[in-house]
Amino acid sequence: MRRINPKRVLVGEPLDTARLGETLLPKRLALPIFCSDPLSSVAYATEEILLILALGGVTLLHLTWYAAAAIVFLLVVVVASYRQTCYAYPGGGGAYVVSSENLGQTAALTAASALLVDYVLTVAVSVVSGVSAITSAVPSLADHEVLLSVAFVVLLTVMNLRGVRESGRVFAVPTYGFVLVIYVMFAVAAVRMATGTTIRAESADLPIHAHGSYAGLALVLLAMRAFASGCTALTGVEAISNGVPAFQKPKSRNAANTLAMMGLLSVTMFMGITVLALVYKVHVAASPTDLGLPPDTATSTALAQIGRATFGSWHFLFYLLQAVTAGVLVLAANTAFNGFPMLASILAKDKYAPRQLYNRGDRLVYSNGVVLLALAAIGLIIAFDAELTRLIQLYILGVFVSFTLSQAGMVRHWGKELASPATPAGERIHIHRRRAINAIGAVLTALVLVIVLITKFTHGAWLVVIAMPLLFLGMKGVRRHYDQVARQVAVAPEAQPRMPARHHVVVLVASVHAPTLKALGYAQGLRPTSLTALTAAADEDAVRLREAWEAHDLGLPLKILHSPYREVVSPIVDHVQSMAAEDPGAVVSVVIPEYIVGHWWEQPLHNQNAFRLKARLLFTPGVAVIDVPYLLESARG
Amino acid sequence: MRRINPKRVLVGEPLDTARLGETLLPKRLALPIFCSDPLSSVAYATEEILLILALGGVTLLHLTWYAAAAIVFLLVVVVASYRQTCYAYPGGGGAYVVSSENLGQTAALTAASALLVDYVLTVAVSVVSGVSAITSAVPSLADHEVLLSVAFVVLLTVMNLRGVRESGRVFAVPTYGFVLVIYVMFAVAAVRMATGTTIRAESADLPIHAHGSYAGLALVLLAMRAFASGCTALTGVEAISNGVPAFQKPKSRNAANTLAMMGLLSVTMFMGITVLALVYKVHVAASPTDLGLPPDTATSTALAQIGRATFGSWHFLFYLLQAVTAGVLVLAANTAFNGFPMLASILAKDKYAPRQLYNRGDRLVYSNGVVLLALAAIGLIIAFDAELTRLIQLYILGVFVSFTLSQAGMVRHWGKELASPATPAGERIHIHRRRAINAIGAVLTALVLVIVLITKFTHGAWLVVIAMPLLFLGMKGVRRHYDQVARQVAVAPEAQPRMPARHHVVVLVASVHAPTLKALGYAQGLRPTSLTALTAAADEDAVRLREAWEAHDLGLPLKILHSPYREVVSPIVDHVQSMAAEDPGAVVSVVIPEYIVGHWWEQPLHNQNAFRLKARLLFTPGVAVIDVPYLLESARG
Repeated sequence: MRRINPKRVLVGEPLDTARLGETLLPKRLALPIFCSDPLSSVAYATEEILLILALGGVTLLHLTWYAAAAIVFLLVVVVASYRQTCYAYPGGGGAYVVSSENLGQTAALTAASALLVDYVLTVAVSVVSGVSAITSAVPSLADHEVLLSVAFVVLLTVMNLRGVRESGRVFAVPTYGFVLVIYVMFAVAAVRMATGTTIRAESADLPIHAHGSYAGLALVLLAMRAFASGCTALTGVEAISNGVPAFQKPKSRNAANTLAMMGLLSVTMFMGITVLALVYKVHVAASPTDLGLPPDTATSTALAQIGRATFGSWHFLFYLLQAVTAGVLVLAANTAFNGFPMLASILAKDKYAPRQLYNRGDRLVYSNGVVLLALAAIGLIIAFDAELTRLIQLYILGVFVSFTLSQAGMVRHWGKELASPATPAGERIHIHRRRAINAIGAVLTALVLVIVLITKFTHGAWLVVIAMPLLFLGMKGVRRHYDQVARQVAVAPEAQPRMPARHHVVVLVASVHAPTLKALGYAQGLRPTSLTALTAAADEDAVRLREAWEAHDLGLPLKILHSPYREVVSPIVDHVQSMAAEDPGAVVSVVIPEYIVGHWWEQPLHNQNAFRLKARLLFTPGVAVIDVPYLLESARG
Repeated sequence: MRRINPKRVLVGEPLDTARLGETLLPKRLALPIFCSDPLSSVAYATEEILLILALGGVTLLHLTWYAAAAIVFLLVVVVASYRQTCYAYPGGGGAYVVSSENLGQTAALTAASALLVDYVLTVAVSVVSGVSAITSAVPSLADHEVLLSVAFVVLLTVMNLRGVRESGRVFAVPTYGFVLVIYVMFAVAAVRMATGTTIRAESADLPIHAHGSYAGLALVLLAMRAFASGCTALTGVEAISNGVPAFQKPKSRNAANTLAMMGLLSVTMFMGITVLALVYKVHVAASPTDLGLPPDTATSTALAQIGRATFGSWHFLFYLLQAVTAGVLVLAANTAFNGFPMLASILAKDKYAPRQLYNRGDRLVYSNGVVLLALAAIGLIIAFDAELTRLIQLYILGVFVSFTLSQAGMVRHWGKELASPATPAGERIHIHRRRAINAIGAVLTALVLVIVLITKFTHGAWLVVIAMPLLFLGMKGVRRHYDQVARQVAVAPEAQPRMPARHHVVVLVASVHAPTLKALGYAQGLRPTSLTALTAAADEDAVRLREAWEAHDLGLPLKILHSPYREVVSPIVDHVQSMAAEDPGAVVSVVIPEYIVGHWWEQPLHNQNAFRLKARLLFTPGVAVIDVPYLLESARG
């Protein structure tokens, strides 16, 4: 019976729970695993700012400086805030956990909804952006962006089903490679410009067609929208604070330091790319026609333009840049493949999600969560036709909801510590400082949340505004259901099993053959109070069956239900139902002789009624269903 | 528990088998039901001839005369042939039955494959053609042909699931309306031309771009291809001979006369339309560009052009023509909705098709066959993008395979009658005549079959050449399987049920709650040889469960299987398997306490392992599976 199992080939042999400890991460592996998302977002954050400001034409591009500066400031604040969380929650301090402990159930579920939406978008946005890095280098692939994106999501899914540790190694190369190539690019740019070269982007001379003239409030809103779009640079900071338990000891310090490292890398790369984009005069727009180009021109990303301009004739370095950019972006989605299933498992443990999401699979990863995330992301990519700028509109809302709730929860957390008499006096000064940091974080992220909501609502964020409450209500519903069921099945400590007073057994008969005889023998072996052979048939079939039955002299009468509509299920269910109703102290067992075939394609040729029959009988009070299988040769292995 | 059943609203209340007799058809209803296919095909047969000849340019259109004349001759021969079948097979003489009785299994299954393919194509071609009648009148719908076609198939499916009789009435109006409006059109055309009006089609002055110059063999082949395309006019003749039992008495005479009536109507309408097409100089081509028009011009069918030219400013009559044409074409598909499920049922009775196709549904129609046909037709329509000319290429091949086999079978049938000493001498002269008619039919249809195969193979008919043998092999395979199973389950007349020597019962335990206690009570009631409470759990869950179990003092030890991979199904199946293997004379019953919930959406929240567990246990020799359901409140109605 041992067959080759395609699942094993794909995801590897099962791992023992005892090996869970082995998968703890050193910092050098934790950085690429948890930070590929925030690090890689610098690949598109600058471009998203430019795209929004381009709506107002070339003259507004100088506002990029202000937006970028605000984002860097925000990033520093958020990193500082989350470092506090790493220390306060060594067991993992995701927004859900922090809100749940400090702000109550409603806040926690709101954060969870935001995070779930956010993880799905992380996968979609990162993968699509990675694919556009590829198509910037190989324009002939531009028509296959949806297909490529879906393929990468599938690849990530398979990798993640294989387990955490192996993934880490795969992720290190592109992440560190990306950081390295970006810094090399800065160095080359600096040397070339210092030696008097004027570098210009390929799009520097293209005009930008403005979509209106922005002044006053409209200008402020546009600038805020540009800022909100650039805030994608902040996504994924949550991952580290959530993943503290996966770090080697000392967990909290290692996590906090990794977070700081990530912040430093992000800020420098983001600023560098923004400076070069402005110096090189990179012009981008939502549509090629806005740049005076034919509508189906394949355009390059801002980062690709910067790379091409910087490296000039060193084509090798340009292609390397695109390769590592694509690599780190596709892998950034991995942050979500770590976070989503872990959050789903916590939610399932708290009975807010189906129990299937609770257990780790046999490779020690939460397999169901991984698959669920992949399906949702693929759905989004296909629905949005792999268009980055449209997906980005949905992205930041969830992120800032969870930021705000998480920081607010931390403020409350420190407040409780201060209120506790157990807190040593020497600690209090530090706790005051930590609370202040988190308070600043909470206020600032709340402010950004409002800006994001105002500027992005009509551009697609309304979808998230609908999706989050639906998830919220769904989770509440699941919890209510589990609570109801638990109440219904609870038993008193002294409760004992009760044998039914009488046992009526009904054997369903379709024909006089070996499976029927086997079922009859089984039923007689149960020594029931009563034994009935039962069938439902239309006239001619009934006559034939009765003749065969009597010819066989089985010593048991056959009860034939008249089935005028040639329907088998309903008459049998009705009959069994009335038997059960007539003798309430008894149990009625229905024995179904079932053909078991060995090939899936043989299945539709048999047992057409068995499934529907069982489904209906199980709903009848006082009835049990017994399958007596008869293994045909093909099923005997 | 009585809920509104959407199936009942859609297809009506169940009918009693005794009412089957009521659905016998008088000729005036049988004609529209069985003949809407051959009658309606005149709506496109002429156009398909013109389309092929147009490949050679305007100069070849005069060949239409010859093709049309050949088709009329063939139609007369085929109608005469099938009239013989109506008399010889009052029980229904479809090609499958006739071949089966006279030519053996291989010929019969070949005919069946051809007919099945053919029925599916009848639905697809008729519906698509009906939709193009609509878009000829309302060009703005031209972009939605696939959607409209699928909608009509769905409509027909629902109508047919409601039953035969009601359908008949719905079908009478468009069929008779179509015949009437066509004859009115002929009258109007005759009067207007007789009074000196010169009528010209809208396309009369358009040039036709020839796709090559045809001469010699190429010309002959093109003419033959045009003839083959026009042979669509013959499709559906089979339906009446197949449906003889549905006629009122005298069944055979009524059927034969209906067939003759149909032949008369078809021939006159086809000739009339062809004459008008040539007199009006209707120019059609596969692509608007061949007529010197822009590529996305919406063009009208040939019949629509004839109607528009004939009726001139009487727009009402033109729209009426298009409406009844669309009506009769969409309903022509109904011929297949009668024939396909009936043939599938005969095949299922002969064990060449899955048993589900044998039984009539509760509205006295073969519901499963109806649904299967609809799905196949919808698949074809979508795959061929609702393009009539591409679908037509696949159409005629199956028709002529079944014609040829059917007529050849009839020749053999009459031969057997002549050889039988029971045949009265006075009859012999008539039988000789009948045999001659069928022999001419067989030879001619075989000839046409060869022409169709040669001229259409590369234009799409190869798909049918592949599909038919696959169906053939599939049917053989199904029969072989059923035969094998019947052999395996057959029992000797003296065989009696045997009680198992011992009965081991295993109750699966997930938690100590009411469903578990109920299952334990049930199991104790079986008074088994041995009773085991069994669970599979990872370490911490195992400890918790054992504590609860012991606290409850159930007087029965709990066996916990160590499940290092947190997988429940395999350890339990392995354990049960070894129990069964240890005691071969015994049977092992596995009792599964199952939560029963009342809403479908609650289902995924429970019983995640029960289904997989049952599926695997049923494959284990010596094991039976007992579901002891526990109805949660939502399932108690």
